[in-house]
Amino acid sequence: MTEPLSSAAAHAPLSYEQAGVRYDLIDPLKVAAQRAAAATATQLSAHGMTEVSASRGESAYVVDAGPFYLASIVECLGSKALVADEMRRLTGRSHYAAIAQDTIAMAVNDLVTVGATPLVVQAYWAAGGSDWFADAERAHELVRGWQAACERCSVAWGGGETPALAGIVEAGRIDLAAACTGIVRPKSRLSLGDALGPGDAIVLLASSGIHANGLSLARRLAERLPQGYLTEVAPGLLYGEALLAPTLLYAPVTEALAAAGVPVHYAANTTGHGWRKLLRHPKPLGYRVHTLPPVPPVLEFIARAAGHHAAEAYGTLNMGAGFALFVPGHEAERCAAVARATGVAAWVAGRVEPGPKRLVIEPLDVVYEADALALR
Amino acid sequence: MTEPLSSAAAHAPLSYEQAGVRYDLIDPLKVAAQRAAAATATQLSAHGMTEVSASRGESAYVVDAGPFYLASIVECLGSKALVADEMRRLTGRSHYAAIAQDTIAMAVNDLVTVGATPLVVQAYWAAGGSDWFADAERAHELVRGWQAACERCSVAWGGGETPALAGIVEAGRIDLAAACTGIVRPKSRLSLGDALGPGDAIVLLASSGIHANGLSLARRLAERLPQGYLTEVAPGLLYGEALLAPTLLYAPVTEALAAAGVPVHYAANTTGHGWRKLLRHPKPLGYRVHTLPPVPPVLEFIARAAGHHAAEAYGTLNMGAGFALFVPGHEAERCAAVARATGVAAWVAGRVEPGPKRLVIEPLDVVYEADALALR
Repeated sequence: MTEPLSSAAAHAPLSYEQAGVRYDLIDPLKVAAQRAAAATATQLSAHGMTEVSASRGESAYVVDAGPFYLASIVECLGSKALVADEMRRLTGRSHYAAIAQDTIAMAVNDLVTVGATPLVVQAYWAAGGSDWFADAERAHELVRGWQAACERCSVAWGGGETPALAGIVEAGRIDLAAACTGIVRPKSRLSLGDALGPGDAIVLLASSGIHANGLSLARRLAERLPQGYLTEVAPGLLYGEALLAPTLLYAPVTEALAAAGVPVHYAANTTGHGWRKLLRHPKPLGYRVHTLPPVPPVLEFIARAAGHHAAEAYGTLNMGAGFALFVPGHEAERCAAVARATGVAAWVAGRVEPGPKRLVIEPLDVVYEADALALR
Repeated sequence: MTEPLSSAAAHAPLSYEQAGVRYDLIDPLKVAAQRAAAATATQLSAHGMTEVSASRGESAYVVDAGPFYLASIVECLGSKALVADEMRRLTGRSHYAAIAQDTIAMAVNDLVTVGATPLVVQAYWAAGGSDWFADAERAHELVRGWQAACERCSVAWGGGETPALAGIVEAGRIDLAAACTGIVRPKSRLSLGDALGPGDAIVLLASSGIHANGLSLARRLAERLPQGYLTEVAPGLLYGEALLAPTLLYAPVTEALAAAGVPVHYAANTTGHGWRKLLRHPKPLGYRVHTLPPVPPVLEFIARAAGHHAAEAYGTLNMGAGFALFVPGHEAERCAAVARATGVAAWVAGRVEPGPKRLVIEPLDVVYEADALALR
């Protein structure tokens, strides 16, 4: 990771912006939308409720509903379906069960960061025309994977929408998204960072690969490779298949922690912006990582092929850490053990320190300062 | 309405299936998804909750959360954004505030059918690339309209997703959807039809026009018209502008009914399938309509230009009735008065009778039998 391979460096390095996502165009709308959304909070008073304002800017929106908090979210898969479509063309195999799980993971893994128990998932499957549904095997895989992921997270699949949107969604494509509703119960499970502070431990949960973030970059790389998605990233493991390893679902971990009585002060889903998401909470705290999880081969491959130094790789991809838990220092080992008991590898990887706000990844000599992540 | 105009009949009549939506391809997936979704209901027992199984097949999914019911939904705008895009090209005017309201209406108007108070809306705005967001006026309209519709419904706008999905969503287009979470409180407000029966009155609420259903048909018609969207459907009213009248929001009506103590036995949002949605509840009941709301000019125009007889027009479009309430007969007049007081025109339009299951629209001599609507 420290030095790009010279063979990959035959191409100029590839940044995330070069891969096609122009945040400079999207961000003004996002800011305007966030301001307008914040202004609607007062509407809840008509129902005798209040928003938990600290949840603005967090991964899920939280309302105080009296006996418990109510949390909700909508999330989309992004461009990973394009990789599944291309792999089906190349190998004949449908990976739609995998990307169904990815879509649910995008919603559920964000929802659980606030301490919520996910209860209901709604499916949003917008196809580029009625023809999309004629591929019965692919459609069946999507249904099967969706159901299995719901069951893994102990949520009810409430229903959803399956529109045929010719003229909006491209022919032969599908736009997959999920909405999730949950509750925080007891209310003490709310993990918006009020208790986050020096002395807390950082426990990292394993990822299975790229999950569903960084796919624009990964797809651009495929275009550069002579064998594209059929390139081996490890013996017998094709790049395209490795990319399609489904995102791990972390709801079983957070539910097990609650059942075991391990308090969670804060949690971050390491999606876009990679490890910079560890800087998510607004408090002026330092985060020092001393232990790195193993890097999945596909992420090692992408980082090398894209010519990324460690700071760019860890600031873009999850690099083996799909989710971060911030727990009291004395609970760190128990937290990791509870996670492992659910089948998810976990490491006591670092600690929270007094400020200034920054993230230090000691084994890599990498430091991200406070301005490395501007989400609010 | 009874006879198609001969000038329009120069073309063969245009059915909904001809307009591009192939339910024969979509429905097998829908059925498979509904079965798989129903199988996940048992997951709620892990959280000490149960689903309200009567809500399967209804417009929103309902869970018994103890002190109240929890309702959730995701809905999409469909193809109405294509009309807004074309009208912007033709007239320079952005109708994105209007279609923002449409999108929220699709979710909120469905959610309130079960008796829920909508609390939180999440935005899903998937653009065909970062460039979409560069049109600041259009983006601002979308934000402004979204906020205003939330405020009209007294819901908090919790947040959402604004992905740039080049390769999935078409360049220059946007896929708009909304997720909504609400509660049924007190639980006696649940309106899944348990109390629906002979003697109930049918109160119809006005629509503003086509709302967001039947747009595939409306767009095909525009292609047939020499002046397209610039055709006048009434003096000074262009077809394209008339189509873009925003969907009425019915949450203020249902909330006002609850506040006034008017019990609602059942409710139906007359979206796809038009008035056939009055047959939605599975009970073997008859529905007899004696009074028709006035037909908005744009719907009168579409029905004539498409060569629809009354049965096809009322079975496809809302024809002036955007929402149907089924209330005890002696509450019918009060129900309509409460609706009017919120600014929504309303008519005591008919009554529920003993079976067999069918809908009779007396003024039109139209009868839809039980098999006219197969949603489950």
